[in-house]
Parts: sequence; structure tokens; C-alpha cells
Amino acid sequence: MFMGASTDEGLEIAKRSRDIVREKIKEYIKNFSEEELEIVERVVHATADPEFAKLLVFKNDPIKEGVRAIKDRVPIVVDVNMVKAGVRYENIICPINNKETLELAKKENITRAKASMRVAKNYIDNGIVVIGNSPTALLEVINLVEHHNVKPRLIIGVPVGFVKAEESKEKLLNLDLPIITCKGAKGGTPVAVSIINGIIAKALGGKA
Amino acid sequence: MFMGASTDEGLEIAKRSRDIVREKIKEYIKNFSEEELEIVERVVHATADPEFAKLLVFKNDPIKEGVRAIKDRVPIVVDVNMVKAGVRYENIICPINNKETLELAKKENITRAKASMRVAKNYIDNGIVVIGNSPTALLEVINLVEHHNVKPRLIIGVPVGFVKAEESKEKLLNLDLPIITCKGAKGGTPVAVSIINGIIAKALGGKA
Repeated sequence: MFMGASTDEGLEIAKRSRDIVREKIKEYIKNFSEEELEIVERVVHATADPEFAKLLVFKNDPIKEGVRAIKDRVPIVVDVNMVKAGVRYENIICPINNKETLELAKKENITRAKASMRVAKNYIDNGIVVIGNSPTALLEVINLVEHHNVKPRLIIGVPVGFVKAEESKEKLLNLDLPIITCKGAKGGTPVAVSIINGIIAKALGGKA
Repeated sequence: MFMGASTDEGLEIAKRSRDIVREKIKEYIKNFSEEELEIVERVVHATADPEFAKLLVFKNDPIKEGVRAIKDRVPIVVDVNMVKAGVRYENIICPINNKETLELAKKENITRAKASMRVAKNYIDNGIVVIGNSPTALLEVINLVEHHNVKPRLIIGVPVGFVKAEESKEKLLNLDLPIITCKGAKGGTPVAVSIINGIIAKALGGKA
């Protein structure tokens, strides 16, 4: 398995893609460690958008911490089922459509994504959080860390959108935890999935 | 339900986002019909990437044809489970991990995505195809149409990547079928999902 490919034709495409990605982001390569660069390449490969080499931010040794946490088989809490469908890992928590989440969202008049993070609180503590879509989910994770004594081992926070996404990611970077995020409005499921799958591959013996 | 939001807070974010999207793509608005513009807005909302207003192409009345096909409850064949997870529809076919697909991929030494389209051939004929990731899957759909008498009612082909994606989308546009695609290397799951969900919402009474 290499960047999601498992057949000869898939491998050939993935390898040619990586060469093209390296050429397209060459001016940013110096900004990253070797292991960070592997993640950046995966994101640019997944999105065909070299701008992510300008936008991605790594804080507090997040890859090393993430690899350790995956080796400990901690749960990965995600915001939406699209992210869940892309992550190659057994223990994924995604309560967005749980009855408890829907009731809490209705009762408190908040988004389902925000409510789902409250519902997943005990998994987020000492777990990994991956937010690919919802700014309100990420803001709730930040709230849990700041006010409810919750401490994730890694937060990958790359919500997308013109409303609240940029603000949520700026707030995320104020936390003193291992973090991977991206600046600006861009982000999304493929960004989130390619980052966490890169860390999982590194932890569980796949090739990066 | 409005652009995926169902709570007051979610609706508020979606509406503010749409106003921002309209402002960001205003120079391209004149290129689209009203119903095309709804789809373009959804894609830009989902990706926070206004460039898609330059890249999206609609051929042979694809929204109208797609709405009719959805009202007929035709199957939607998709290339990967991330796309499946995002689409709000009952009848979705995604054989990428089927035993038959894995065996065919191994035997023919082709990608799993390509093999999965051969496996889904009878659903693609008179069905809707949504390719969000794999250029080889899209090339196989084109092959099925050109050489195996298969006729989908709508093809949404937005694979992503620097290898084969652009080429596959150019070939797609040679077909005389209802098509939605985007030029260049960009595309991906959120693009595919926001397009088909827009059409489903239009067909089944949701708000666009």
C-alpha cells in the first residue's frame, strides 16, 4: 500500500504523482522536516492543490506524537462520516448521527457537529481528533480542552469554509498541544484523511 | 435541510457562507444558468475554493437529466466509499472492496477503482455515475460507454490528481451524454458529493 494504492497500476500513478507534487511545492520544501514533508506531499497529492504547502502548520511535534498514539491504538474521533470512510483504522468514533447527538443539538440549538464532540468527550481525552469539515466541531474541541480538562494526544483540525473555519483554526493554534492545521478557509475531508492516513501508515508499518 | 445543515446554527453558517461565495465568484455568474449556479455555489461552499467557478463544465442539460433520473430512483454508482458516505441517497453502488472487484483487479493487473466500474457495469447502464477520486475509474466508464453499449443517464466525473485526471476529464467531454466535470487537476470527494447532493435535493424536494 502506497498513498492508498495497492495494485501495480495504482502504484505507478501514485509514484508519478509524487514526483509531480515535489516539483510543484519545491519552494516550500525547506520549511518542513522530512516527516512533515511526507504529510504535505500526501495532502497536495490528494487535493491537486499546491497551495496547501503554504497553508499547512505543524505544532508541538504532532507527527511523532500521533505515531505514538496510533501505536497505543487510541480512538480517533472524527466530525463526519466522509472522514470516517477514508481513514484506514479500526477504532474510529463518529457520533454525528447518534440519537444522543441529535437530541443534544436540538435541545441546545447547536450544530450536530458541535454536539457530537460533546458526546465524544471521553474518547477525545487521550485520543486523536480529526476535524475535516466543521468549524463548530473544532471550536467545541477547543472549548473542551480549555474549560473541561480534556487533553487529546493530537488534534488534526482542517475544517473548510468561509464562515468560522479560519477563526477556528487560529484559535486551535493557541492551544499547547500537538496540532496539525492549515491557515485560511481551505481544508476539508481529503486534507484531513490524507494527514491521518499518513500518520497511521507511519505508525503501523505502511510506507509513507 | 439547506446545504447539509439542519440546525439553526448550521443554517445560519450555510446562509452566510452562500453570500460570501456569491461575492467571490461574481465575475463567473453570467457563465451559468440559474440551476447551474446553485451547483457551482455548493462546490465553492464545500471546498472554499472559488477557482471551481472557472473549472466546472455542464454539458447536455445534466442537472435536468440528473433530477429526472433521481426521481426515477436509478442507482448511483460511485468510485470510493468517501463519496458514498457523503451522498444523501438510498441506492448507492460502490463495489471498490467487493471480492469480485479485488479478484478482477489482481487478475487483470488494473486498479481496484477501474475493476469496480466493470463490476458495476449493469448499474452504470441507465444509472448515474459519480467519480470523485479515480481517473482510472472514469476512463473505464468512458470505455464502457464507447465500446460496451453502456449508457448512463448522467456522469459526474471530477477525479483529482496530477496523473491522468485532466486527461480523463477531457475524454469524458467527448461523450455525447449529460455530463458535469471540471477542467484541470483539481476535483475530489467534496466536489463530487456537493454536485450530486445538489441534484438530489432538487429532485426530492430539499432546498438547493
